[in-house]
Amino acid sequence: MSIPTSARQWTLREKPHADPVLEGANPTFTQGTASIPELQDGQVLLKTLYLSNDPAQRTWISRAVQPGRLYVPPVETGEVMRAGGIGQVVNSRHSTLKPGDLVTTTIGWTDYSVHDGDSVSVIDPPAGLAVTHFLGALGLAGFTAWYGLYEVAKVTSKDAIVISGAAGAVGNVAVQIAKKLIGCRKDFKKVIGIAGTDDKCRGVEVLGADVCLNYKSPSFKEDLTKATDGFVEVYFDNVGGEILDFMLTRLARHGRVAACGAISNYNRDSDPTALKNYFEVVSMRLQILGFIVIDGLHLLSGARAALVEAWQNGKLLLGEQAETVVDTNFSDIPRTWSMLYSGGNTGKLITKLKD
Amino acid sequence: MSIPTSARQWTLREKPHADPVLEGANPTFTQGTASIPELQDGQVLLKTLYLSNDPAQRTWISRAVQPGRLYVPPVETGEVMRAGGIGQVVNSRHSTLKPGDLVTTTIGWTDYSVHDGDSVSVIDPPAGLAVTHFLGALGLAGFTAWYGLYEVAKVTSKDAIVISGAAGAVGNVAVQIAKKLIGCRKDFKKVIGIAGTDDKCRGVEVLGADVCLNYKSPSFKEDLTKATDGFVEVYFDNVGGEILDFMLTRLARHGRVAACGAISNYNRDSDPTALKNYFEVVSMRLQILGFIVIDGLHLLSGARAALVEAWQNGKLLLGEQAETVVDTNFSDIPRTWSMLYSGGNTGKLITKLKD
Repeated sequence: MSIPTSARQWTLREKPHADPVLEGANPTFTQGTASIPELQDGQVLLKTLYLSNDPAQRTWISRAVQPGRLYVPPVETGEVMRAGGIGQVVNSRHSTLKPGDLVTTTIGWTDYSVHDGDSVSVIDPPAGLAVTHFLGALGLAGFTAWYGLYEVAKVTSKDAIVISGAAGAVGNVAVQIAKKLIGCRKDFKKVIGIAGTDDKCRGVEVLGADVCLNYKSPSFKEDLTKATDGFVEVYFDNVGGEILDFMLTRLARHGRVAACGAISNYNRDSDPTALKNYFEVVSMRLQILGFIVIDGLHLLSGARAALVEAWQNGKLLLGEQAETVVDTNFSDIPRTWSMLYSGGNTGKLITKLKD
Repeated sequence: MSIPTSARQWTLREKPHADPVLEGANPTFTQGTASIPELQDGQVLLKTLYLSNDPAQRTWISRAVQPGRLYVPPVETGEVMRAGGIGQVVNSRHSTLKPGDLVTTTIGWTDYSVHDGDSVSVIDPPAGLAVTHFLGALGLAGFTAWYGLYEVAKVTSKDAIVISGAAGAVGNVAVQIAKKLIGCRKDFKKVIGIAGTDDKCRGVEVLGADVCLNYKSPSFKEDLTKATDGFVEVYFDNVGGEILDFMLTRLARHGRVAACGAISNYNRDSDPTALKNYFEVVSMRLQILGFIVIDGLHLLSGARAALVEAWQNGKLLLGEQAETVVDTNFSDIPRTWSMLYSGGNTGKLITKLKD
């Protein structure tokens, strides 16, 4: 393999006000080329194989988020769009990493990139397990589910739980942990998923949810009210907005919200989350607990080992519900990413670079 | 004193949609008369001396709060409006209570009422202390401040804090506990009050706030941003709404909101709390902790003893900032109560019945 000297990359051209603009005269991102610097001692050159697509990426390019109020620096205009991914080492001046090794790190929307070898993690998946799961159920997405359930909401088998975005990268793992590892209220069948199509809902039920409700159904609120009869102790919230607002009325006294994300608002900088039921936070003594998984990274390897074991024992399904891998030309990276916001993925949305 | 046989009372006529209606053809409350039943064994007849006025009373007659989603049963149409108060025993068939005793209990908007003697608490204030403080700083209002600071937000001397409604019944005590009992960040002068007039703000500063800001000032947000430079760990929220939304941007990472009330929305059933900064809950890992003081009543007597001691030591001022006692004709009970929502009181708003 010859060593490339230039890399293609997508940079942020203009922070979007609402939906990212993929076409026309004023797109959000722009494609270009940069030369690849010579490797220094300790560095590796990675060829990008897979890119992670995450709702949180939208917040990194938000106009609404103020400086210092994010858990990572925002991506600024002119910078390569940040993204996690899996790369293959194609050149190395690092003591242990060698060409051919597969690693995860923050790669960005580029086909080749130089990294400090100590900043990447080598992937060595057990036999039979696709490497892509290290971006999904066995990566930060799955760990987010783990951390939110065990460490933030401190869910126990006495809790009934509702999980939104249940067909998504975090949600599908959260459903499985809640039902099959924590075993939420086996007697009362109370792991309730929320997703955006009937097909997704059936998939979430395959994963273990006692029921999964389609929030686009005209009877959604009635369905959710019925499913949460007697109320629930925990809401694992991936979406924010209207569903969060409604869930404030469906939580039991002293109920907890694990506030993981608010994708329903990420493309609506000027459109607030209107909590018309906010007073229930006071009257029912609810707790809304925001969290970011990077606070718990010291627990990642232990959680990953437990999730791998759960997979080996059949308690963590990593089939078609776990990931959507999209073969993508480099020029279509933003388009594949935007599927996140139109509900185009089931499980983790992964870009597989085919050129 | 002759024993009366009938009582005047104010009953709920129609739950309001917005501001309670005090005049006209369709008022919220209506005045009437009821006969007083003969006392049974264990009962006492109370003459109402003082009534407690609380923002929470508006939520008890709300159309928006659903059945079962309140910490007390709602007041229904036709029922006497519920209110705490101080009464004097005028007749007793209870073993220890005798005519002349002063007690606190849930009295309601009536001039005479019959109670189970075991359900009332005798007041025996230390010399020099007005009995009315047992509805305010030494009653549930002051205890709400105590409970929210110590038990909910778990404020320590390492925390900087913002307190809204700082001139109100709960807020004025919260300011004093934070500054003079917990001693929030003496070195950085970080007990920040928020109130609704410049006069109130100066009073809050007399109580110990390092600064108090008028939320009606055109420069309020700039002032608050400056006062919270470096961010604050805790927001004690009595008001909800816009100030809560803005405070989400002024809390430090892992900051806590002690969610005590949302008076800004109580008269606006259909007008939601719009949290355009909701994502900060996630990105900054904030905790919004709803609470109701009745969960902590086992701590009330200890807290009251500590507050009395603080008063004796000069660390709890119970002067003009602590209460507004309004001499009120029976026919004006709703009008005095409504002063709560127009900012007419400083400290606890107390109705003193003069007829």
